[in-house]
Amino acid sequence: MPVPAELAELRVDRARLVRRLKELGEVGALEGGGCSRLALTDADKQGRDLVVMWMRDAGLDVAIDAVGNVIATRPGRGPGPPVMCGSHIDTVATGGIYDGNLGVLSGLEVIETLNDAGAETSRPIALAFFTDEEGSRFAPDMLGSLVYAGGLGVESAHDIISIDGARLGDELGRIGYLGPTPCPGLVPHAYVELHIEQGPVLDKAGEVVGAVTGIQGISWQELVVSGQANHAGTTPMLYRHDAGYVAASIATFVRHMVSQIGPPQVGTVGRLDLYPDLVNVVAAKATMTVDLRNTDELALEDAEERLAGYVTEIAAREGVKVSRRQLARFEPVEFDPRVISLVEGTAASLGYKARRLPAGAGHDAQMLARVCPAGMIFVPSVDGVSHNPGEFTRPEHLEVGANILLQVLVRLSEEREVPPAHTAGSP
Amino acid sequence: MPVPAELAELRVDRARLVRRLKELGEVGALEGGGCSRLALTDADKQGRDLVVMWMRDAGLDVAIDAVGNVIATRPGRGPGPPVMCGSHIDTVATGGIYDGNLGVLSGLEVIETLNDAGAETSRPIALAFFTDEEGSRFAPDMLGSLVYAGGLGVESAHDIISIDGARLGDELGRIGYLGPTPCPGLVPHAYVELHIEQGPVLDKAGEVVGAVTGIQGISWQELVVSGQANHAGTTPMLYRHDAGYVAASIATFVRHMVSQIGPPQVGTVGRLDLYPDLVNVVAAKATMTVDLRNTDELALEDAEERLAGYVTEIAAREGVKVSRRQLARFEPVEFDPRVISLVEGTAASLGYKARRLPAGAGHDAQMLARVCPAGMIFVPSVDGVSHNPGEFTRPEHLEVGANILLQVLVRLSEEREVPPAHTAGSP
Repeated sequence: MPVPAELAELRVDRARLVRRLKELGEVGALEGGGCSRLALTDADKQGRDLVVMWMRDAGLDVAIDAVGNVIATRPGRGPGPPVMCGSHIDTVATGGIYDGNLGVLSGLEVIETLNDAGAETSRPIALAFFTDEEGSRFAPDMLGSLVYAGGLGVESAHDIISIDGARLGDELGRIGYLGPTPCPGLVPHAYVELHIEQGPVLDKAGEVVGAVTGIQGISWQELVVSGQANHAGTTPMLYRHDAGYVAASIATFVRHMVSQIGPPQVGTVGRLDLYPDLVNVVAAKATMTVDLRNTDELALEDAEERLAGYVTEIAAREGVKVSRRQLARFEPVEFDPRVISLVEGTAASLGYKARRLPAGAGHDAQMLARVCPAGMIFVPSVDGVSHNPGEFTRPEHLEVGANILLQVLVRLSEEREVPPAHTAGSP
Repeated sequence: MPVPAELAELRVDRARLVRRLKELGEVGALEGGGCSRLALTDADKQGRDLVVMWMRDAGLDVAIDAVGNVIATRPGRGPGPPVMCGSHIDTVATGGIYDGNLGVLSGLEVIETLNDAGAETSRPIALAFFTDEEGSRFAPDMLGSLVYAGGLGVESAHDIISIDGARLGDELGRIGYLGPTPCPGLVPHAYVELHIEQGPVLDKAGEVVGAVTGIQGISWQELVVSGQANHAGTTPMLYRHDAGYVAASIATFVRHMVSQIGPPQVGTVGRLDLYPDLVNVVAAKATMTVDLRNTDELALEDAEERLAGYVTEIAAREGVKVSRRQLARFEPVEFDPRVISLVEGTAASLGYKARRLPAGAGHDAQMLARVCPAGMIFVPSVDGVSHNPGEFTRPEHLEVGANILLQVLVRLSEEREVPPAHTAGSP
């Protein structure tokens, strides 16, 4: 894959990239920093409109599909399937301004850099942002890219109900992003996503580039504990069926189990709601979520089983019922070895030694990996802070990441053949 | 205290009492049973208006005081301070139709019975319902009777903010119950309150009447745990400051500590809210309440100290901050021995052997006990269910309780002297 010298020498404009990250971060901005653009809310619509305007200003052809994914394409010299980059622009309720935004806006920066140089690539370059990657409002997470890759039907996706009771299909229509392009979408030649690490590994090691080897398996479940409301003063402890106590016990069990299993297992109870949630009433009901992740599928299954065993045991002991609903379940993903090597080699050609590491979070790239060679580039998150208004990545590291993305995309665009290992529809 | 025969033979009208309990229970009724009239909400206003209408229809003189307590008086032959009965009509969010309503409507039934017979009592009979006994919306509980008895100033009470952010004084004005009668209120000759037990003791023993000896001490505190929001997938367990885990650990500690101390100690975490409360975000903040009760003040203090010790320990271990706010704190109360004996003797004269027992819940009677001889009559709660739509007391037991209340009030009304043990303002 020989790359023409005029392409190999191109470099992005750091100031323009940082300016756009900040401008997008002002949409849904939180007081004191960070931003909140839960999927398909008014704030998300505003963010989408801004990025689509930038895409059109850059001369791209913008397509919106049936779950609101936006794919903008810059033509190549040839027709072949495009090389795709991208990520998402929805955020958690109290998010930072980098996260998925970087993958989208660095892709835009790559395209602007090619435009400014009047450069042509062999293949088209496609830039995507996928709907509801965070899963904070509609479960599962990575929903848009899952539908794009054919892992979930459009109608099933439309019928998903948000935590605030809204239907996904209705919300798409309401904000004007129920597009005509069908799903599953066009299979790209390859997919590459630049993202902040969201963890402390690169930052603590003083390294600048991660060549991501794969993604942790994720298990999300919701548990609903049904006990009996009763008076907190007059009900002897032995007669209680306290949903709040059972939920708290499960939450502490999750922590102790995870400690026992050890890294890379992690586990989190991020949501826990009591009903009626009053100081002097024994809780009748508790709704909680458990997020378990591991790079090893068997270890993850083991953690799920241990948790299920404990839930059965404590439900019997306390005389409560516990119902369980799987919100999301993804096996660990391994990225394409050729794309991993290409990220490493490109980083080296720019003077950086990339560290190979797995991703601790889910990413749209793992959905695209179902249908094409895919990979990711990480840049450091200061102190590993993420999903938090205090999330920060140094501008010089953003620039390094975007330049590696540019050169990786250019190299992939010069490839003539789809590598044999991947064909559309392979898992 | 000789009671004229025409008074001693009076009996209440069971059907009228039950009808009124049901009619009041329709205000704020929950689907499937029970009702919800949190203090000073629109539903509470509707309930108040109904009871005040009944009071006026019964010819009573209705006074509303500065914290919305309603005191209705039936004149006596003499002027002396009245004998008072009453309770409250606010409920928890998912309450039953008996609870405080019984104390108020049985008092009304006593007055209707006296009216129907054209009977005169020596002292006036006063019937009160006190504001915000439950404390579910405004802390502390028993707020109205606390202010009535001089334990909290009117202005301080007005400035209390509800769990939904409303100011008590503003809510009183909004629903039309910011009355002109000053607080502290008139000191009654004595105070007697009929209430359902709200616990299983009488029901399990097959007994009908409780002569309440006193009230458990109550300690309510709110703990706010401040940790760090972070990504649930990428943050190694060792680097977490998980407010949700700390809150869950405190909740399980409360249960284990209470089991270790043993009865009559009880402890409940009824409220627990996480922020941002999302499946994939380590909680930055948790707000929880701890309700501890014991009939023994030293044992209650010991439980508070053990809890504080554990909170300090786990906060240090997990690198979080925990702030603590006392929402309510009442020492155990002992009722007037003469009133306890009077309840016992009156029950016996009606053919019931009363069981002496302490109350597991707080009641307005404990506030009145600060200023006058006070006591309570309990009737059984089926299965001890309370603060729950399924709360139920058999109509025949309601009738027995109301007849004992009637005869206790009549006997107290014939007393000529304030007993020397109590004077206004004594603790």
